[in-house]
Amino acid sequence: MSVEFGEPVEQVRIRPRMTVGELVEEFGKSGAYNAGALWSAAACYEAMLRDTEATRFFGLAGAMVPGGMGGIVSDLIERGHIDVLVSTGANLTHDIIEAIGCRHYHGTAECDDVELHLDEINRIYDVYLPNEAFVNFEEFMQDALGELGPGSVISIAELLAHLGSRLATGILAAAARHGIPVYCPAVQDSMIGLQYWLFDQTGDVCVNAFADMHGLMDRCFSATRAGALFVGGGVPKNYIFQSMLMTPNGFDYAVQLTGDRPDLGGLSGATLDEAKSWGKVNEEGRAVTVYGDASITLPLLVAAVLERLEA
Amino acid sequence: MSVEFGEPVEQVRIRPRMTVGELVEEFGKSGAYNAGALWSAAACYEAMLRDTEATRFFGLAGAMVPGGMGGIVSDLIERGHIDVLVSTGANLTHDIIEAIGCRHYHGTAECDDVELHLDEINRIYDVYLPNEAFVNFEEFMQDALGELGPGSVISIAELLAHLGSRLATGILAAAARHGIPVYCPAVQDSMIGLQYWLFDQTGDVCVNAFADMHGLMDRCFSATRAGALFVGGGVPKNYIFQSMLMTPNGFDYAVQLTGDRPDLGGLSGATLDEAKSWGKVNEEGRAVTVYGDASITLPLLVAAVLERLEA
Amino acid sequence: MSVEFGEPVEQVRIRPRMTVGELVEEFGKSGAYNAGALWSAAACYEAMLRDTEATRFFGLAGAMVPGGMGGIVSDLIERGHIDVLVSTGANLTHDIIEAIGCRHYHGTAECDDVELHLDEINRIYDVYLPNEAFVNFEEFMQDALGELGPGSVISIAELLAHLGSRLATGILAAAARHGIPVYCPAVQDSMIGLQYWLFDQTGDVCVNAFADMHGLMDRCFSATRAGALFVGGGVPKNYIFQSMLMTPNGFDYAVQLTGDRPDLGGLSGATLDEAKSWGKVNEEGRAVTVYGDASITLPLLVAAVLERLEA
Amino acid sequence: MSVEFGEPVEQVRIRPRMTVGELVEEFGKSGAYNAGALWSAAACYEAMLRDTEATRFFGLAGAMVPGGMGGIVSDLIERGHIDVLVSTGANLTHDIIEAIGCRHYHGTAECDDVELHLDEINRIYDVYLPNEAFVNFEEFMQDALGELGPGSVISIAELLAHLGSRLATGILAAAARHGIPVYCPAVQDSMIGLQYWLFDQTGDVCVNAFADMHGLMDRCFSATRAGALFVGGGVPKNYIFQSMLMTPNGFDYAVQLTGDRPDLGGLSGATLDEAKSWGKVNEEGRAVTVYGDASITLPLLVAAVLERLEA
Repeated sequence: MSVEFGEPVEQVRIRPRMTVGELVEEFGKSGAYNAGALWSAAACYEAMLRDTEATRFFGLAGAMVPGGMGGIVSDLIERGHIDVLVSTGANLTHDIIEAIGCRHYHGTAECDDVELHLDEINRIYDVYLPNEAFVNFEEFMQDALGELGPGSVISIAELLAHLGSRLATGILAAAARHGIPVYCPAVQDSMIGLQYWLFDQTGDVCVNAFADMHGLMDRCFSATRAGALFVGGGVPKNYIFQSMLMTPNGFDYAVQLTGDRPDLGGLSGATLDEAKSWGKVNEEGRAVTVYGDASITLPLLVAAVLERLEA
Repeated sequence: MSVEFGEPVEQVRIRPRMTVGELVEEFGKSGAYNAGALWSAAACYEAMLRDTEATRFFGLAGAMVPGGMGGIVSDLIERGHIDVLVSTGANLTHDIIEAIGCRHYHGTAECDDVELHLDEINRIYDVYLPNEAFVNFEEFMQDALGELGPGSVISIAELLAHLGSRLATGILAAAARHGIPVYCPAVQDSMIGLQYWLFDQTGDVCVNAFADMHGLMDRCFSATRAGALFVGGGVPKNYIFQSMLMTPNGFDYAVQLTGDRPDLGGLSGATLDEAKSWGKVNEEGRAVTVYGDASITLPLLVAAVLERLEA
Repeated sequence: MSVEFGEPVEQVRIRPRMTVGELVEEFGKSGAYNAGALWSAAACYEAMLRDTEATRFFGLAGAMVPGGMGGIVSDLIERGHIDVLVSTGANLTHDIIEAIGCRHYHGTAECDDVELHLDEINRIYDVYLPNEAFVNFEEFMQDALGELGPGSVISIAELLAHLGSRLATGILAAAARHGIPVYCPAVQDSMIGLQYWLFDQTGDVCVNAFADMHGLMDRCFSATRAGALFVGGGVPKNYIFQSMLMTPNGFDYAVQLTGDRPDLGGLSGATLDEAKSWGKVNEEGRAVTVYGDASITLPLLVAAVLERLEA
Repeated sequence: MSVEFGEPVEQVRIRPRMTVGELVEEFGKSGAYNAGALWSAAACYEAMLRDTEATRFFGLAGAMVPGGMGGIVSDLIERGHIDVLVSTGANLTHDIIEAIGCRHYHGTAECDDVELHLDEINRIYDVYLPNEAFVNFEEFMQDALGELGPGSVISIAELLAHLGSRLATGILAAAARHGIPVYCPAVQDSMIGLQYWLFDQTGDVCVNAFADMHGLMDRCFSATRAGALFVGGGVPKNYIFQSMLMTPNGFDYAVQLTGDRPDLGGLSGATLDEAKSWGKVNEEGRAVTVYGDASITLPLLVAAVLERLEA
């Protein structure tokens, strides 16, 4: 027989009060489908975090902060598990909104959106955000942008570090506190961008779109090893992956949590094997995709890995 | 303001060695997307299992047993949490295969299927099943079928109870031991069906396709309240739901774990609200859908609910 | 260079009043993603229909008839392109409903299902079916079932042929007229099943669940070549595929139109390569999957292939 | 009866050599699922294109150009149907690659990606792109960037217009020829960005990340009416939609072709109703989503609408 295969599938056993790490061990023993993939992802992410010579990237796409997943990201920064963060502008907008004391609310997707609009409530699937949050957001942003020195030329990461330095909680605050760069190539494409446009009517600052690439590329050239955890795809996934393309290096570890599918051709659903053809992931790199809603798979993954690392 | 909404979204916090129930509580506090739905599903399923006057149905579709999820079903039967089981034929086939001592194995979906075929290995996504299992399966089945009295007319559930009575472990064994009926409307559509066809070359037994409906419908007419947990859609979901259509009753509790999507029109991805238009779910019935891979969501749900019930 | 690849991707060009066949030719020239797959599926299905020695199977799952796709199936039967049909019970129920003059209606999925229920309207995503259709359906069914000879033992296909012989339009009618067997292993799981249950309170007929397998298996053993078009997965896909498992044959042509995804492990989303490991599809068999909504891909495929065959 | 509903579902009829527009008319008569949605999308897009006072936006995400869909976009520009284009950087990169004479090739997703890497072939699902294309791309880009005046400060759209002015075919060329602005907020996140980084080692040009927002916002403030066609989600969808947020206006027409799903919370799969809660789409705006692979739905939509407009 020429085909090799592994251990027998074990039927999952549930014990009341089992820990998340124990549940994920059961996933490993069953070994099938996305449960099996989640166990493999935990093993890969654990190895990435234990590898003290690896630069750890985190890509954050999807509406994660409005959905309550931002706390996991800021905690990972606080624990020292993220070296470089690449995010969509929307996640950072909602991070600021929470950090300045505004809140998102439990709602429902079965609703009348015109009625919501009349009540000045913005919907993100089943999360509701009252418009007044954007009033406070505008005040914070215009204050913060007004502090930028006239005539200065800054990068997007510098702009975000400036915002983070004025906040006490959340992702931008934790990143600023720990000196972790936050890259956001499409920052214009967010409420941060709209506020900047408002400021820019009178301001005299130039944000150089490409200025951040030098620091990022230098880091990629000098990395001994590298790993990435991708929540969703989008710009963060591509930006992290492409950063290695100009270097002789590639990623040694990659974990992708996505709800997309590969057959549409888009990068967000593309397999990590595909990334090997480009050299983004090394030939012998460990790479695991878990398909599903990251609001479930991210907490599961992180809880299982922290249990392995700290318990 | 006329739109009502709920609690603020809380950012999820991960603690090493937290229990699954504690994680699902965090999902409830974030409240968003499928994580929020999973918390609601746990609350609904807990209420269903605590309601001693409710008849509890379980619909089992998808390749759950080869993926190691059969143990959860048999344990739920053992714990008294299932009154009526409706399954696809495939799950019962693989349940028998495991019960007679054959095993499924960890494999990979990135493989050469022609090579697998030459090696006599059958693939179910990333699970491998060597052909020899079907040799043992045939022996068991022909023995068991040979015991059926010549000239007898039986129902599908009676056929399955007969098989279960000859097994010591697994779903059919647990159901037989506890007197739980197992319905499988499309039993022909499985290896059990193919074995029956083989037996039927010489056998003299008639399996009445519709005979089980009387017992099921009587149960539905007499149910004080009813609840259902659906793993996947397919025949089990429709068969359970339609059983209430002829009665003045409907389901009071319904939880659906599915990877399908509603916009294709098929029942497997249909919302449980749609079921209310048919009267399958009562107007005020609690109904929650969690979209995702049931190999992840079923263990999460059951672990959280058992922790609520037993801890 | 060891990797072989094909033609250059051509950018799709749209010409007003181009035919569907011409559009699918453009898909072939672009060659990518599911558009490319649709072109390959058209080539495969054309070859299947041109192969006069091939037995042509058609598997019909999903809510196709309520969504207006039943006309395509009955037309394919009329044109002689289907030799064996395997369907879910639901599609046949709705086929009868249309054949007896009742109609489904354009509706919307954004609605209040409780209100629909109070108005006695049943919803299938964005299709509405008033309850009164089931009143007429009951009358037709009880009449038809009442004609079955007391004490008789029949197969499911015989039952369906009896129903079809009393109808003038639709799938069952076309199949009866052309002597095409219609298999429906889970017929109980449908309104047809519920009507049979009603009839069975007083009737004296036994529908043998397994009786159809002999005819189907004989056909599979004697087939020179075989092909299948699968709309959706479910019971029809598995039943058609498993019918070859006991024979030395496998399918030479297979086209699958599905909205499911492979990574969940279920058969409905499984690749046709997976089917090769089981021997369901021959090693050198042509097999193409198109992922997407069959309400779009089925008409596209059939229009393109009829244009190739007839134009 | 209080619920209103529409026309009866008509069973789709296929006629050999029917035009795409005729097929889409059949979709309208069936009216169900994504086929029905495609007909509605065609009606909406036709109205948008006939409305001479509407500003027409086009959002381009996903791997559309490598998959052969770029020709449709450049033809729509040539025909005067796009006023503002927002694209991902990747689509523009591949547009340049085709415009300078390099080609993408038909490949397969069932492959050995490490072998592809060794052969210097990059994979995009089932499309192959040899590395040598990037050699030519680098030459073109460095030449073009070298022409930028030292010390100049430009916007991203100006950079892209400069590139387009040096090309004869494709999207950027057509846009440059017709004076259509091409916005690409995340241009860094692409091979164009990497080439710019290379140039920026020695160059002395500042690309102002936010400079394009003024022109875009002015356009939004002055628009009498506005419509958008979204292929995929990502940055283009959000950037187009948010551009109206600061104005008293919203979109009057919106058509979205996406393969994502709403329940994950991300914008790419979000319904257009959700956009109404934000005021991005007007309360009485026409908005239609078609779920599926845009490599199929975009050509279908455009062919049907051009047939309505021109035939």
